[in-house]
Amino acid sequence: MMEESNVAAAPLRYAGVATLLRRPLVSDPSGVDIALIGVPYDGATENRPGARHGPREIRNMSSLTRSVHHVTRVNPYELCNIADLGDVNFSNPFDLQQCFADITDFYSKICAAGAVPLSVGGDHSISLPILRAVAAEHPVGMVHIDAHTDMSDHEFGHKFTHGTPFRRAIEGGLLDPKRTIQIGIRGAQNSEESWQASEDAGIRVMYMEEFTSLGIKATLDEVRRVVGQGLTYISFDIDSLDPAFAPGTGTPEIGGLTPIEAQALIRGLAGLNLMGGDVVEVSPPFDPTGNTALVGATILYEIVCVLAASVAKAKG
Amino acid sequence: MMEESNVAAAPLRYAGVATLLRRPLVSDPSGVDIALIGVPYDGATENRPGARHGPREIRNMSSLTRSVHHVTRVNPYELCNIADLGDVNFSNPFDLQQCFADITDFYSKICAAGAVPLSVGGDHSISLPILRAVAAEHPVGMVHIDAHTDMSDHEFGHKFTHGTPFRRAIEGGLLDPKRTIQIGIRGAQNSEESWQASEDAGIRVMYMEEFTSLGIKATLDEVRRVVGQGLTYISFDIDSLDPAFAPGTGTPEIGGLTPIEAQALIRGLAGLNLMGGDVVEVSPPFDPTGNTALVGATILYEIVCVLAASVAKAKG
Amino acid sequence: MMEESNVAAAPLRYAGVATLLRRPLVSDPSGVDIALIGVPYDGATENRPGARHGPREIRNMSSLTRSVHHVTRVNPYELCNIADLGDVNFSNPFDLQQCFADITDFYSKICAAGAVPLSVGGDHSISLPILRAVAAEHPVGMVHIDAHTDMSDHEFGHKFTHGTPFRRAIEGGLLDPKRTIQIGIRGAQNSEESWQASEDAGIRVMYMEEFTSLGIKATLDEVRRVVGQGLTYISFDIDSLDPAFAPGTGTPEIGGLTPIEAQALIRGLAGLNLMGGDVVEVSPPFDPTGNTALVGATILYEIVCVLAASVAKAKG
Amino acid sequence: MMEESNVAAAPLRYAGVATLLRRPLVSDPSGVDIALIGVPYDGATENRPGARHGPREIRNMSSLTRSVHHVTRVNPYELCNIADLGDVNFSNPFDLQQCFADITDFYSKICAAGAVPLSVGGDHSISLPILRAVAAEHPVGMVHIDAHTDMSDHEFGHKFTHGTPFRRAIEGGLLDPKRTIQIGIRGAQNSEESWQASEDAGIRVMYMEEFTSLGIKATLDEVRRVVGQGLTYISFDIDSLDPAFAPGTGTPEIGGLTPIEAQALIRGLAGLNLMGGDVVEVSPPFDPTGNTALVGATILYEIVCVLAASVAKAKG
Amino acid sequence: MMEESNVAAAPLRYAGVATLLRRPLVSDPSGVDIALIGVPYDGATENRPGARHGPREIRNMSSLTRSVHHVTRVNPYELCNIADLGDVNFSNPFDLQQCFADITDFYSKICAAGAVPLSVGGDHSISLPILRAVAAEHPVGMVHIDAHTDMSDHEFGHKFTHGTPFRRAIEGGLLDPKRTIQIGIRGAQNSEESWQASEDAGIRVMYMEEFTSLGIKATLDEVRRVVGQGLTYISFDIDSLDPAFAPGTGTPEIGGLTPIEAQALIRGLAGLNLMGGDVVEVSPPFDPTGNTALVGATILYEIVCVLAASVAKAKG
Amino acid sequence: MMEESNVAAAPLRYAGVATLLRRPLVSDPSGVDIALIGVPYDGATENRPGARHGPREIRNMSSLTRSVHHVTRVNPYELCNIADLGDVNFSNPFDLQQCFADITDFYSKICAAGAVPLSVGGDHSISLPILRAVAAEHPVGMVHIDAHTDMSDHEFGHKFTHGTPFRRAIEGGLLDPKRTIQIGIRGAQNSEESWQASEDAGIRVMYMEEFTSLGIKATLDEVRRVVGQGLTYISFDIDSLDPAFAPGTGTPEIGGLTPIEAQALIRGLAGLNLMGGDVVEVSPPFDPTGNTALVGATILYEIVCVLAASVAKAKG
Repeated sequence: MMEESNVAAAPLRYAGVATLLRRPLVSDPSGVDIALIGVPYDGATENRPGARHGPREIRNMSSLTRSVHHVTRVNPYELCNIADLGDVNFSNPFDLQQCFADITDFYSKICAAGAVPLSVGGDHSISLPILRAVAAEHPVGMVHIDAHTDMSDHEFGHKFTHGTPFRRAIEGGLLDPKRTIQIGIRGAQNSEESWQASEDAGIRVMYMEEFTSLGIKATLDEVRRVVGQGLTYISFDIDSLDPAFAPGTGTPEIGGLTPIEAQALIRGLAGLNLMGGDVVEVSPPFDPTGNTALVGATILYEIVCVLAASVAKAKG
Repeated sequence: MMEESNVAAAPLRYAGVATLLRRPLVSDPSGVDIALIGVPYDGATENRPGARHGPREIRNMSSLTRSVHHVTRVNPYELCNIADLGDVNFSNPFDLQQCFADITDFYSKICAAGAVPLSVGGDHSISLPILRAVAAEHPVGMVHIDAHTDMSDHEFGHKFTHGTPFRRAIEGGLLDPKRTIQIGIRGAQNSEESWQASEDAGIRVMYMEEFTSLGIKATLDEVRRVVGQGLTYISFDIDSLDPAFAPGTGTPEIGGLTPIEAQALIRGLAGLNLMGGDVVEVSPPFDPTGNTALVGATILYEIVCVLAASVAKAKG
Repeated sequence: MMEESNVAAAPLRYAGVATLLRRPLVSDPSGVDIALIGVPYDGATENRPGARHGPREIRNMSSLTRSVHHVTRVNPYELCNIADLGDVNFSNPFDLQQCFADITDFYSKICAAGAVPLSVGGDHSISLPILRAVAAEHPVGMVHIDAHTDMSDHEFGHKFTHGTPFRRAIEGGLLDPKRTIQIGIRGAQNSEESWQASEDAGIRVMYMEEFTSLGIKATLDEVRRVVGQGLTYISFDIDSLDPAFAPGTGTPEIGGLTPIEAQALIRGLAGLNLMGGDVVEVSPPFDPTGNTALVGATILYEIVCVLAASVAKAKG
Repeated sequence: MMEESNVAAAPLRYAGVATLLRRPLVSDPSGVDIALIGVPYDGATENRPGARHGPREIRNMSSLTRSVHHVTRVNPYELCNIADLGDVNFSNPFDLQQCFADITDFYSKICAAGAVPLSVGGDHSISLPILRAVAAEHPVGMVHIDAHTDMSDHEFGHKFTHGTPFRRAIEGGLLDPKRTIQIGIRGAQNSEESWQASEDAGIRVMYMEEFTSLGIKATLDEVRRVVGQGLTYISFDIDSLDPAFAPGTGTPEIGGLTPIEAQALIRGLAGLNLMGGDVVEVSPPFDPTGNTALVGATILYEIVCVLAASVAKAKG
Repeated sequence: MMEESNVAAAPLRYAGVATLLRRPLVSDPSGVDIALIGVPYDGATENRPGARHGPREIRNMSSLTRSVHHVTRVNPYELCNIADLGDVNFSNPFDLQQCFADITDFYSKICAAGAVPLSVGGDHSISLPILRAVAAEHPVGMVHIDAHTDMSDHEFGHKFTHGTPFRRAIEGGLLDPKRTIQIGIRGAQNSEESWQASEDAGIRVMYMEEFTSLGIKATLDEVRRVVGQGLTYISFDIDSLDPAFAPGTGTPEIGGLTPIEAQALIRGLAGLNLMGGDVVEVSPPFDPTGNTALVGATILYEIVCVLAASVAKAKG
Repeated sequence: MMEESNVAAAPLRYAGVATLLRRPLVSDPSGVDIALIGVPYDGATENRPGARHGPREIRNMSSLTRSVHHVTRVNPYELCNIADLGDVNFSNPFDLQQCFADITDFYSKICAAGAVPLSVGGDHSISLPILRAVAAEHPVGMVHIDAHTDMSDHEFGHKFTHGTPFRRAIEGGLLDPKRTIQIGIRGAQNSEESWQASEDAGIRVMYMEEFTSLGIKATLDEVRRVVGQGLTYISFDIDSLDPAFAPGTGTPEIGGLTPIEAQALIRGLAGLNLMGGDVVEVSPPFDPTGNTALVGATILYEIVCVLAASVAKAKG
């Protein structure tokens, strides 16, 4: 019964229904170039939950985003048809495998329609079922910005948590570890396993200290060296940022990126062969100022800018 | 570009785009029996602003509302076609008279289409331009639940503030003071003018103390005696409640109604000839727990229940 | 490696390690009359999570509790040996059935040692595995104070959620519906099923409105009539209270009990044949003032007072 | 260097410098009938501190108060000359006895100038040095609204804490226990001593349960019976209220007064021979919504109304 | 009735009435060198309001400021007579043009008395009516630190908003664009207009990225090159800072200045021919920790330090 | 009655009783290499109190800490036996000298048992009585990271406040000023006394600006030059950090260290002859997001890493 209207175009930012990046809300991906999708799932979180509420709050804070980028002067909404496709609906939110299947199904349809998905979590476990759809045909490279490698074999004996998605993705042939770089890794662990697993797999792990030492430009050189011109996915965990900037997350680690650094990293991905991405682990119940969701929405906008350029180029 | 879909039907409460009472979002009022409308205006607030953000947060907290009433077993959504019509859009939010005109225009179209409007503010000034549309043909009666009479002649020399709407409405022949009752009035004033004006106009003013002393049943008897069977509007200011229940408002007055009392009052309006209503003065920036918006959404649901019965009966 | 000490006896309330009701922390239930136990599980919550953090915060707010009751002058800690047994540990927190088994195992050992358990949730699903241990031999009666009956057959097809525990408990012969009373029920539902199920099972359902109308004394008469002198469990969902008093919960419903009413209800259970209880659904991430956890800790203290009298009497 | 101006008369509530009840700020008590005074001391608090910040926040929230009472139509500012005398200044805030001496000195000067003091704490220990000044010549009666009797002999061996002021005041011949009533007493204690001490001294102790049972009218009859027509002091501890209404306090006890009850109690003191009062224990760091300070400011206004009538009558 | 006293000299920071930078509150500018003035106006805000409450909270947080600068060892209060002149009072806060006139009148009197004004907003629109007074005789240069150029021609057709003040100031001959530099500009816009307008006018626009790249020293060289030795105004919008440092503002843009950078920028203005300034857009309702107001108060102190040196030098 | 158990080993971070760095809680220091100790005292705070609640919240946030350091791969818990010894208990919390004596007694026993203490405050005054125990035999050197030198002679005539501990420690022969360095000093003062005192005593004072200018590596060179290989204490005041990272403290000063800088400083102390340390001034009532306590817990972990290496080396 939802009819045609231009919800997202309400000129007043505080008016109307909130959508991702103030884009029109559509249910049919036909003709959409970049599909913004919410994945409100946090059932794979091992400590502080709440990321299921992430898409809702990032929609709300999207009201503060606008269109023309102040550095590049790109207006992504002029380059591509970009819409909010709503959230993945879960038939049984208590059943992780069923939720993963629901996600993969949803994204398979998006991909089949020719749209490139850009997702809002949800905890980091959602990257796995998303990759099952978007990387179904061949493994992709990845720029992964996070405090954690998320390469554990299991947590509490459980194979599918927000600490394991990329281990599973590599095992499943969805992710090419040789074309993957992880930036911002830090924080103590109870064992070295999750770090060692990345190195064993051949992932380029850039700990926070190396990033700080290299600086943005050299880091981006390294990113380009690693991922090359193959298809590349961007996975941005909000806990890559220092928790002063993003307190609303499940596993905060002090000593992280600043927004300036995160924005510069993403802007520097222009020119890569990008085919999707996600912004995950925004947990509104731990975010009394709303700043985490604001950062999440703005990072989403930054990714849209580079993704739109890539998609527009691919479409010729 | 907003396409047909059933946004509001997302079974998971935290998923999807938030709409008023989880109703479908439509732009065309044709076929709609009750139109839920946001009016994000707070430019007539004389102290603490923020009510412009009320519709957005009441949409968010609407996720916690459901359909079948636990006392009456009424499902209003089975009685009537009820939809979220979005927010009034303001062509110049800085110009009060233009905003009022925009509101009246919007509501005139809703009324012309045969829909009964139920509004979410916004500050209390919005009731005036709404009444200009819905009571254009003859004055209506009103059940007004509030800490303040909102009957001042002016504030700081300004005739159109959130403290004056009903003075103006009576002057404009929109409101029949003899069929109006104000419940919950309390809190010191800098002069007796706003109280005296109600009494001079012939409004039945029930101060908080009289309400507490009479109790719900006798109060409802008095309501029915005053408003009778003529067309009646419900105006619910969230500051009628004690601020422990609703801190997020511009002019809190301690010693107010409890939600149980407010709910019982509204339920007791069943059988009246209701033709519209509003819930106003929810100011999210002053509402850190979100409880004010939750109360606002639930009161909106209670009003929908009695309004739907009235509308269904009127339609035969 | 935890050695003998008297942690809970630190005279300064803000000093030392926080334990439930400031009781000694022990790992061996031998000699304990009443075992206070945390059950940090919220994996069966269908909307807002966070109750897994409930035991931690109720330990913190326990610092504000003391020993001698101002009405009854009972000091429960003189009547019985009461200790904090810590939290149930989950071998795989992502596997609901395993968590339920872990709970039942933990409580079976407590019961085998002769201790009566009093629990702190966690979401309401935990009552089921607790009852599997404490009511293993014969069904018990229950005084259930809650906004919801928690008698749904399933949510999203899932049989074990925080909306279904008592349906399952009756099916499992753990709960005697004829000796069960539910008080404070309110709030709209999407169908009448969860209310009807209680009535079909023979449970005495006292909706909020009937409670308000009857008052405490008549309600307690009804409680005693229903549960009689058989073994009786107390299940207290914090959402029975109005969310102004307890905002930190997953499914708030306005129009609820006041703390005075809740305290009076529990005090009135003195003389029943009580054999255990729980306080559930305190969700700290939604509790910025901490008042919900304070209410939870104080209700826990009130239950301890009546439970200790019952246990002391049973022990002769 | 502070010059003559009419600071408190700024018509915009959010403008200008905040003063107690928006009264003029003066340093000379000559000609002042009622002196509003802040006492920012919390060095006698045994658990959660912060009441030292109470006067500042009650000044801020005073912006929401006004002049004409909605029930009595009294404008206290027309009956008496009422001013904000600023805060007691402490020469050494770390030395309790020196602070007490500073308070007594300050109030002695106020009294010598013929002004009646009405104070804003600070913790409850301040009532003792205030009484040393205002009751220097003969013991006074007291209406004491609080969750606690504050009649302990000591805390941790310390004789001067916020739990002992009235024990000391009686010992010092400042307070007539036979003309003292304590209302709202509740919450567990670690011994019965503080309750027993009140009863031993001959104070009329009305526990919360008796108050609830008697109701306002009978309680006020009892107040008048106890205090009679002698000089009477009002001491209002904000923790008398349920913490849903006043979370920002050091020793919250659930199950307390509502603001309606507190306001009715104070209004009912009209006609007594009132000679001063205080509002204490507002602790802003524990008050994220500010509601506690708002309640404190409004209670202060209610006391001013009855006190002004008493003072005006005494002055003839 | 406000009498002479030394309110601001209360040695305890939490005691007494709060004034700007703890300066004496005076109503007569005679003999005052630097006048601290609050301008509680936010009626020109197009999205999140609340800056009208800025002066009050910056007064409160001023309690944490002190006198001797740790780098320069300047005590501005020894260089100049600096006082809090209170807030501009608005005769009709709903009428923007009247408010602007009230501001200009207030400042004209301040200037006529020979005092240099340093203001606390309020939204950024207030800079225009302030400049109308302080730059009445000839256009001034400006160091403008902000995320936005505030050079739009209009918002929603409205010429006087917080996004347009400097466009109007240049049109009015109040501001010399050739002697104006804007630092920290960033964040997407819906069109390039507000950036282009600055460049078209000849303003030196330093985007955030250029600032980061140049560093403090080179930036200050550029500032001195642009503004030279003519009279220069400082306008500091709190949203120039990253919202982790200053969340309480209407239009936050991530990726902003740190306080260290902002402080260094202002300290580097020593030696310029400074004649006034403002700190604007602190919105307390969006500032739960109070850090934004603390930053605002400290920036105000930093400006006072360089301004006092300039004023003292001008006075010889 | 606290029995042997492995409380701290609960694998779920949110489960069980919270201890410092999740270490076992023991009452007997025998066999303990590093004793983690809470000192919940804030009676020497001259402005905003609340640090007495610091140990409790740092215990809670310790749940987010883990064992293996991501840079050094050190697991301090494998190098040494590290336990939570609980909090110092105060026999009379209102008597500063008695509290100091209680602290010194407690630490003397810890030292006598051969354990090295690492403390959690509490306000900074606690460093003095700790040094009286740990430096009883000969003065130690100190790395002091703080916004303030804490070298005042007195505050309000009081010799023992959180602004004076190191003045007293030098006078008492506990601290060797020539082997002391203070890093991060900033923020205005009301006189130069507290800075001058450090310089007069021969302390190496590194103001924030010098630190920023030198960078981490050169700063650490200077640290090593100053403290040499003598016994060295680490005192970390959380207000050394910018308040965006650590708002929950009594005397915030903007323009401070980032966590990355603080962590790098502490890591760089590896190789020094460390014999104890403290983390002080975390004030939870001013910390709505909890980030200050998280930073405090993580800094505690960083100190444990370098301290454990030093202790292990000393033990051979």
